[in-house]
Amino acid sequence: MTTLASLETPCLILDRARLERNARRMTERHKASGLRLRPHMKTGKSIDVARIALAGNFGGITVSTLKEAEYFADHGIDDITYAVSLVPDKLPRIAALIRRGVRLGTVTDSIKVATEVSHRAVAEGVVVDVLIELDSGERRAGLIAGRPEIPALGRVLHDLPGTRLAGVLTHAGNSYQCRSLDALRQVAEEERLCAVTAAGQLRAAGLPCPVVSVGSTPTATHGQCFDGLTEMRCGVYMFGDVFQSEIGSHDMDDIAVTVLATVIGHRPELNAALIDAGGLALSKDRSTGAEGLPEDAGFGFLADASGRARIPGLRVGKVYQEHGLLESDGPFPFDLLPVGSRVRVLPNHACMTAAMYDAYRVVDGPSDQVVDLWPRINGW
Amino acid sequence: MTTLASLETPCLILDRARLERNARRMTERHKASGLRLRPHMKTGKSIDVARIALAGNFGGITVSTLKEAEYFADHGIDDITYAVSLVPDKLPRIAALIRRGVRLGTVTDSIKVATEVSHRAVAEGVVVDVLIELDSGERRAGLIAGRPEIPALGRVLHDLPGTRLAGVLTHAGNSYQCRSLDALRQVAEEERLCAVTAAGQLRAAGLPCPVVSVGSTPTATHGQCFDGLTEMRCGVYMFGDVFQSEIGSHDMDDIAVTVLATVIGHRPELNAALIDAGGLALSKDRSTGAEGLPEDAGFGFLADASGRARIPGLRVGKVYQEHGLLESDGPFPFDLLPVGSRVRVLPNHACMTAAMYDAYRVVDGPSDQVVDLWPRINGW
Repeated sequence: MTTLASLETPCLILDRARLERNARRMTERHKASGLRLRPHMKTGKSIDVARIALAGNFGGITVSTLKEAEYFADHGIDDITYAVSLVPDKLPRIAALIRRGVRLGTVTDSIKVATEVSHRAVAEGVVVDVLIELDSGERRAGLIAGRPEIPALGRVLHDLPGTRLAGVLTHAGNSYQCRSLDALRQVAEEERLCAVTAAGQLRAAGLPCPVVSVGSTPTATHGQCFDGLTEMRCGVYMFGDVFQSEIGSHDMDDIAVTVLATVIGHRPELNAALIDAGGLALSKDRSTGAEGLPEDAGFGFLADASGRARIPGLRVGKVYQEHGLLESDGPFPFDLLPVGSRVRVLPNHACMTAAMYDAYRVVDGPSDQVVDLWPRINGW
Repeated sequence: MTTLASLETPCLILDRARLERNARRMTERHKASGLRLRPHMKTGKSIDVARIALAGNFGGITVSTLKEAEYFADHGIDDITYAVSLVPDKLPRIAALIRRGVRLGTVTDSIKVATEVSHRAVAEGVVVDVLIELDSGERRAGLIAGRPEIPALGRVLHDLPGTRLAGVLTHAGNSYQCRSLDALRQVAEEERLCAVTAAGQLRAAGLPCPVVSVGSTPTATHGQCFDGLTEMRCGVYMFGDVFQSEIGSHDMDDIAVTVLATVIGHRPELNAALIDAGGLALSKDRSTGAEGLPEDAGFGFLADASGRARIPGLRVGKVYQEHGLLESDGPFPFDLLPVGSRVRVLPNHACMTAAMYDAYRVVDGPSDQVVDLWPRINGW
């Protein structure tokens, strides 16, 4: 049996017990809310992770790339929402997915795109389900609830051949900026009102709106009212990370993915040490106290090699391509971390960090045994 | 023949003509300086790129991971410096490389590591070439020139079985912080003095120091004096990027790698548009005007789909996992960039951006033809 000690570093460790606990918690929360939970697989990008996230749910997922959609379809998942703005050039791959039996939801906020997609879909001999994308405050893609563009786009999607109006969808990515429970609850309610308002506009125009979909891990976790919604999409809750922990989505000891790294140098005169996990192994998502977070995580907090105990006061303060510089609030614990010893880095942003690896080394709770290797699908 | 228009986006485009020009310029510069140029392949991570970088040079390369070393050895390169602090746990892979005939240089700044490496190397039946790593001002790994630790470590590496003292090595990564030609030249001179001083210490102690190695793209480009050095290591010059361009290592139109992306949405009320290249497609290395650079590049500047002309005043202002938000200094040029049209993103930091892809789509100068597909080696 492989042990942690025998792994080459840096590598990505996934604690299956924590993943299962995180997945179960969200599943139970939305059993109670009455929403269909459609886990977003952009974080996990693994069929093994998806199977755990789908336990107790209806079986549909969300993805952020067509490569994910194709991979999950290859593994038997047949209800997939591709939640990044559709463009006509992607129609051949979308049509191929539909033809192989995938119920594929897509999103747009543009009549021009809808019209071109209609032409291309007719040419491909398929009908594409399209949700109207809404901007509930993130200021990324989407239409603003209440505006006349929504029923106008709905009418086009409903009436044209080749497209089918499937509902509305929004993502309160602005919840990541919240620094209090009150603010999170308010953003969750704005997300809900946005989706429900737009759904009401469509229905008032005599149009169907079967799906009313919202989602982000913070709003899925802290939303108080889900009236009028049908579906919740969220992803990072499965793994957790320092950033979600700092904004209150979960506890620090819920974090299920970590990077195993080796201490490769001591710099006593800098009160610092080096590990073999840098910008490529951790990603460059930085968290700072200046953002109003409780604690500056730099490029990630540290735990011992077992992943059981965080080492307080320690963070990855700087990253280079393959080096991470560990900084300490107090005197650096050189004796605790000799050169050659190992640590775990708790990632700031699990989606970005996991994307640097092509597989998870799976452990099961506080054990040194590596019980499995789960491949990931990266790229486009 | 594949054309740019037929590629799925996002994808990584490499202009071979620019790569060859950049490589030739550095090769000629160091033919003149008399140093052996040992290109750092951590940026390119491709044998096809290495062959171009090695044209006219002695044939040795630098790498940042053992996976790179193994890959390049598989492709016939047999003189490789692994320029990240050695730890004893990596000895089995290092010994395997040496046994297959690779002249492998390694680095350390620690007597403890040297001693343990000696034991392990003897057990493996190999002798490991080790360079003493120096800190010439970056404040990452390395010993400080002039300190007694240098001859002490040199003595250990020279006397112990299983290790061979191969010389000294430093990397002026602090050159990236320079904001003027004078400052760059000063850092280059500090890098040189550091290496030459340490080499002098070893020789004064009766120890050999065949290799005196320095390197970073800015100091390789702007250094004025190379006396006492034997070797230059640099990597990003092959590709160039926005950051190197802003600090004066090359011109903006020397940038050889770009990300081809599709405009996927317009947001007139935000004076912005969206592309399908976000944090994963571009990496999250951000450049800001606040860092004293001439212009805020956000997460990258924009060029037209041909890659020939930069679109002035436009940048990737925000990134999400799969979305990039284009911001404009003036009114957004929506007519120039309709939804479905394509752009090229000039990357801030080529090493990080290229690492998000498993291959280059190769073009040859200002042509729409994709002439080759060159795989990359990522991971560890």
